Amino acid sequence: MTDSQFPPSFEGPTCSLPLPHGEQVVMGHGSGGRLTSDLIQRVFLPAFANPALLAGNDFASLNLPEAGNLVGALAISTDSHIITPLFFPGGDIGRLAVCGTVNDISMSGANPLYLTAGFILEEGLAIDILQKVAVSMQAAAVEAGITIIAGDTKVVEHGKGDGLFITTTGIGWIPPNRQIGGQMAQPGDVVLISGTLGDHGIAVLAARGELGFETAIHSDTAPLNHLIQAVLEVAPNTHVLRDPTRGGLATTLNEIAHQSQVSIWLEETKIPVKPAVHAACEMLGFDPLYIANEGKVIVILPAAEADAALLAMRNLPYGLDAAQIGEVKADSPGRVLLKTPIGGTRILDVLAGEILPRIC
Amino acid sequence: MTDSQFPPSFEGPTCSLPLPHGEQVVMGHGSGGRLTSDLIQRVFLPAFANPALLAGNDFASLNLPEAGNLVGALAISTDSHIITPLFFPGGDIGRLAVCGTVNDISMSGANPLYLTAGFILEEGLAIDILQKVAVSMQAAAVEAGITIIAGDTKVVEHGKGDGLFITTTGIGWIPPNRQIGGQMAQPGDVVLISGTLGDHGIAVLAARGELGFETAIHSDTAPLNHLIQAVLEVAPNTHVLRDPTRGGLATTLNEIAHQSQVSIWLEETKIPVKPAVHAACEMLGFDPLYIANEGKVIVILPAAEADAALLAMRNLPYGLDAAQIGEVKADSPGRVLLKTPIGGTRILDVLAGEILPRIC
Repeated sequence: MTDSQFPPSFEGPTCSLPLPHGEQVVMGHGSGGRLTSDLIQRVFLPAFANPALLAGNDFASLNLPEAGNLVGALAISTDSHIITPLFFPGGDIGRLAVCGTVNDISMSGANPLYLTAGFILEEGLAIDILQKVAVSMQAAAVEAGITIIAGDTKVVEHGKGDGLFITTTGIGWIPPNRQIGGQMAQPGDVVLISGTLGDHGIAVLAARGELGFETAIHSDTAPLNHLIQAVLEVAPNTHVLRDPTRGGLATTLNEIAHQSQVSIWLEETKIPVKPAVHAACEMLGFDPLYIANEGKVIVILPAAEADAALLAMRNLPYGLDAAQIGEVKADSPGRVLLKTPIGGTRILDVLAGEILPRIC
Repeated sequence: MTDSQFPPSFEGPTCSLPLPHGEQVVMGHGSGGRLTSDLIQRVFLPAFANPALLAGNDFASLNLPEAGNLVGALAISTDSHIITPLFFPGGDIGRLAVCGTVNDISMSGANPLYLTAGFILEEGLAIDILQKVAVSMQAAAVEAGITIIAGDTKVVEHGKGDGLFITTTGIGWIPPNRQIGGQMAQPGDVVLISGTLGDHGIAVLAARGELGFETAIHSDTAPLNHLIQAVLEVAPNTHVLRDPTRGGLATTLNEIAHQSQVSIWLEETKIPVKPAVHAACEMLGFDPLYIANEGKVIVILPAAEADAALLAMRNLPYGLDAAQIGEVKADSPGRVLLKTPIGGTRILDVLAGEILPRIC
């Protein structure tokens, strides 16, 4: 990697639109979809203009100019976490914060090593909640094999925060000659997903009591670094790794299609969705392809390595439901298309606004 | 640096006390003083137990185990910024966020290289405020010579945040054989300060309209990396660098006295304080030695290198008022003592609670 290849972790495609809701921040600016992308285009990219902020990955890879004969590169990623409620079936804000950043780092093909955490506490937060979150963070860190090496704590007045926000930054190491990123998808590649879609979003919605019925769905929040290393061992020519978090599979694939200037064709019948998630989405009018996941990875790679990668994932607890769901083509660059069971084709666009705020 | 020397950026001495205000977070937990330290001791250190979190610096230095024959180490630091108001004489939350992290990285003797930023926006925040803050961040980054390489944006509902919180994480490079940290102060060393104390805290208080009178005091918010490199060129045996932010000079020196198991003796008449800051503190009943600074550095080094370091600082715009203010002794380890103009000696303890919340 060279300095001119710095990729940003500012997410989203690079189209620039007028802000449709006027000149104030709205909830949709946090959706991970078109409004988020627009805010980044309008505000952050012009201000921070540098080569690092143009490629559109969730990690930055960078050199150490003073480190002499260093072979390889650093991977860095940061994420703020504002989820409500703080605890939900399958996870909590602490596990989410650690896993989210471990995963973003891992999407570069890096081995995540270290994590920092900045805590913004609201006056009145129960100390035992904070303790539970810290213990959960450490458990996730141990599972991922990383170390939490630095932190900061700030307190805001009651009513000026919401219990607990956590911003994590991860540092990893990309071995030499590893070229993975959203701009690397090639026509002829196939698209894999490591498991079922929509579990996290629906589990959080259920924990808020917003479903209106009982469900046993658990968030999929998990560190994927071991699964990804297993994939890369058997599929060293993997082109793209990305986790479909905010905006879901559809929005994430749109980012990749745009970055690589290819089209991505999905087969709806092959996309794994748990029956309970499907049922909840039907009732609520949601599409599981737009719901956030926190323990899934999209793998795009040459067809010749697909079976080995699928087998490697299915041998691991977080990859049991891994599936091949689509392919990459040269025509209609920037588009994501879904082949439906009845033989139709539907364009999957970027998530426009916000369907599930405070989800990660 | 070895793995067993990982220092934490969790601030504060390592005494453990019962939480005096019960089992809820109070504003004083964000003071940078005794309550902050206690929260870290009670909650974070037990959970994240690892060698990285025991030395008590504002940066972590770490190796890259896979990087082969790398000579030197990474420096990492993180800080969340929650200041109110967002704009104040001499700075704003953006300049503060960049400078605060640049400075924490620089306190390791590292050259800061890269910065990440996580934004937590409150619904309803004016976009032009966000733009002004982003432009200010970039100006500070350019001044420091660093690159903002990754970011994340989240939005919380109106009333669940306070306009804008920014968490920055910095990455720097520590050249080989540089051994700087709070545990390195030696009896016989002298203590320098790069300029006047209390400017930031009083400027922010004035911007809140809480002074009750007009003042022309500006925050000292500034990146100190160039000044520190100038010091290290002429004073290569510098033992400690630390910026007296939350808790002020007195609290920061207590941390160092505790880490190094030495006493630090200050001469009150030699400590530079602007007359307007002194006057404001007199009226409000504050001690400028406990007020936060955002552009000052404490330098502790062998007496033989002190004059050269002072001259190097005074030649630079952020070091014009640099002064030698005290010395390090072996007796009364852990104590900070102030010699008053009338010949008395006063113990300067750690800041207990919170005198200026939302200051950084």
